Amino acid sequence: MFEFNITARNHRARTGVFSTPHGDLLTPVFAPVGTQATVKTLTPEHLKGIKASLVLSNTYHLYLRPGDDIVSELGGLHRFMRWPNPMLTDSGGFQVFSLSQTRKIDDDGVTFKSHIDGSMHRFTPERSIRIQENLGADIIMAFDECSDPNDVAYSRIAMERTHRWAERSLKAKRRADQALFGIVQGGVQADLRAESAQFIASLDTPGIAIGGLSVGETKQQMHDTLDVVTPLLPEGKPRYLMGVGTPEDLINGVVRGVDIFDCVLPTRLARHHSAFVPEGRLNMMNATFARDERPIDETCDCYACKTFSRAYIRHLIVARELLAGTLLSIHNLRALIRLMENIRVYIADGSFEERVPDLLRQWQGNAARHKKE
Amino acid sequence: MFEFNITARNHRARTGVFSTPHGDLLTPVFAPVGTQATVKTLTPEHLKGIKASLVLSNTYHLYLRPGDDIVSELGGLHRFMRWPNPMLTDSGGFQVFSLSQTRKIDDDGVTFKSHIDGSMHRFTPERSIRIQENLGADIIMAFDECSDPNDVAYSRIAMERTHRWAERSLKAKRRADQALFGIVQGGVQADLRAESAQFIASLDTPGIAIGGLSVGETKQQMHDTLDVVTPLLPEGKPRYLMGVGTPEDLINGVVRGVDIFDCVLPTRLARHHSAFVPEGRLNMMNATFARDERPIDETCDCYACKTFSRAYIRHLIVARELLAGTLLSIHNLRALIRLMENIRVYIADGSFEERVPDLLRQWQGNAARHKKE
Repeated sequence: MFEFNITARNHRARTGVFSTPHGDLLTPVFAPVGTQATVKTLTPEHLKGIKASLVLSNTYHLYLRPGDDIVSELGGLHRFMRWPNPMLTDSGGFQVFSLSQTRKIDDDGVTFKSHIDGSMHRFTPERSIRIQENLGADIIMAFDECSDPNDVAYSRIAMERTHRWAERSLKAKRRADQALFGIVQGGVQADLRAESAQFIASLDTPGIAIGGLSVGETKQQMHDTLDVVTPLLPEGKPRYLMGVGTPEDLINGVVRGVDIFDCVLPTRLARHHSAFVPEGRLNMMNATFARDERPIDETCDCYACKTFSRAYIRHLIVARELLAGTLLSIHNLRALIRLMENIRVYIADGSFEERVPDLLRQWQGNAARHKKE
Repeated sequence: MFEFNITARNHRARTGVFSTPHGDLLTPVFAPVGTQATVKTLTPEHLKGIKASLVLSNTYHLYLRPGDDIVSELGGLHRFMRWPNPMLTDSGGFQVFSLSQTRKIDDDGVTFKSHIDGSMHRFTPERSIRIQENLGADIIMAFDECSDPNDVAYSRIAMERTHRWAERSLKAKRRADQALFGIVQGGVQADLRAESAQFIASLDTPGIAIGGLSVGETKQQMHDTLDVVTPLLPEGKPRYLMGVGTPEDLINGVVRGVDIFDCVLPTRLARHHSAFVPEGRLNMMNATFARDERPIDETCDCYACKTFSRAYIRHLIVARELLAGTLLSIHNLRALIRLMENIRVYIADGSFEERVPDLLRQWQGNAARHKKE
């Protein structure tokens, strides 16, 4: 279980197969995010239709609602949401730091207030693992602390705590059918990132996550950080770049040897009427689409593009019909999944590296309008 | 085109086949409502999955947004919303009276203010038909005036105007591939209803609609009105009871010889977390479902019931996930469509009449909680 076999290489980029109890993942892979045990507005049938393979869900949210005990009682997350394929849960750490109203961190763990009802809760590495065992995803994460990338002193403290917590997470883990990934932290300091990569790589885990990116640093800092980290990681373990990102980020991540990505961007943009197309991001509410019979993206094979016109989707948006969000979510997720499918083909046939400038140029219209730019 | 063949009879109830340019309708039939060219939150694939045959859309809404000219330019309603099967549009009259902010009725037509942006518009019978021709549904409606059922004097005025408007609608109609139905009005006055039924029956139309019910009258008044109207209508034309209704209303309508129904109730209830089940309406947000592994309705064959637990659907509702509304819409619509399928079987095998008391008892839990009771 949890074997990772690299099937092709193009410089640092690679394709691989990561085997899980719920099936094999072909990497590089983009995972849609189903925060609350549902990829917003989509059924599992829609997810199969866009050829999603890995789905992420958030431990913090599921712990609060409906509760990991209920999910466990109902047979675990796969059965609860009827997703038969591989799943991944995060540790809850990132959401505790970004969503909960107040929090107190100590070396043992974090006490926080629910963003839903203000109730007090406590996560420790052991508690996070126990919750993730209740949820039952195939890939689970060590409990970690994500620092402000611009705060060097805090980045060291958070990194060192993340290392201690990774060891405790590993020790707490009981289920053999779950792959626990340690998380590399260290902000944007090359020395900290190198130290963290070496430490996390030294742990006995079937995969390694890279956390603390796409949290406010520049693109250059993200690339520089990956350039420090991935060369220090063992070749034979999949690398998961957490919470990233735009089409451009995925391409740049694969170039630097990343295998797994997830991001809420495709579904969040869908709710804001925005569609990924290679030539740039389209605001589908634009009046120029009122009579446009073309699909969102003529090159796309998703249900929304194979079925509906831009004019119809614009009408749904203007008329505030929720189906618009469903159709745009299908399209945006499929766009990134298809990008990864193409990248896997290019790596396999050896053309990926030479295609990167074209791929980046093709998708730069999206990157340029991303709020983090 | 637009042949109606009665295939079985059970006292006044009957099964039939109504042929349209987009396929045959098996009657009695329940039509989901796609007000703005979409049955809220559902794709056409979902509609096929629940075996919907006829879909209704609203002329008033589509005229205002996106505009019937745009729908026409894009190939008509079927193509616009990618529904390949029969469609029906109302005349816009009912919405002008119920939704628009101010209106001035004269014998020629109605001037009204858009509920969306306050702009002024005018509908006449000729304009309504022209708009419906632009939309291109298989079944279209004469422009009518729906009166307050408790205002006897107004009911006569509105009925007489409806008759004049029916003649003008018929005269204005140009497309041979659309079936225009006249509409019986007359409030809850038996004499007016009889007069209206005879007048509308005298027109050369392939079907007849019964309007002005489910607008505030009692159940008894609805039944009494149907008891006056349907015996006066020609056997060989389908009868469409507009905007009705609950499972109990459908059963009672079929008993009285109605063939076609539509109602927003199943999708509206879905958005309010309510599920049709034979033993009563379930509030799916109820905490008792938190750990309930059963489907919404164990006897139901819809995607939601075949796939998800009550616990999962309750979680989606509590977590404010829109997928809840999608799944409950699928279930509620399927419940009524399945009820009609069963009724067709019972009429065909001659058992319908004797089953009516049981059917009504079975579904009375829903009727009892309907706001109109």
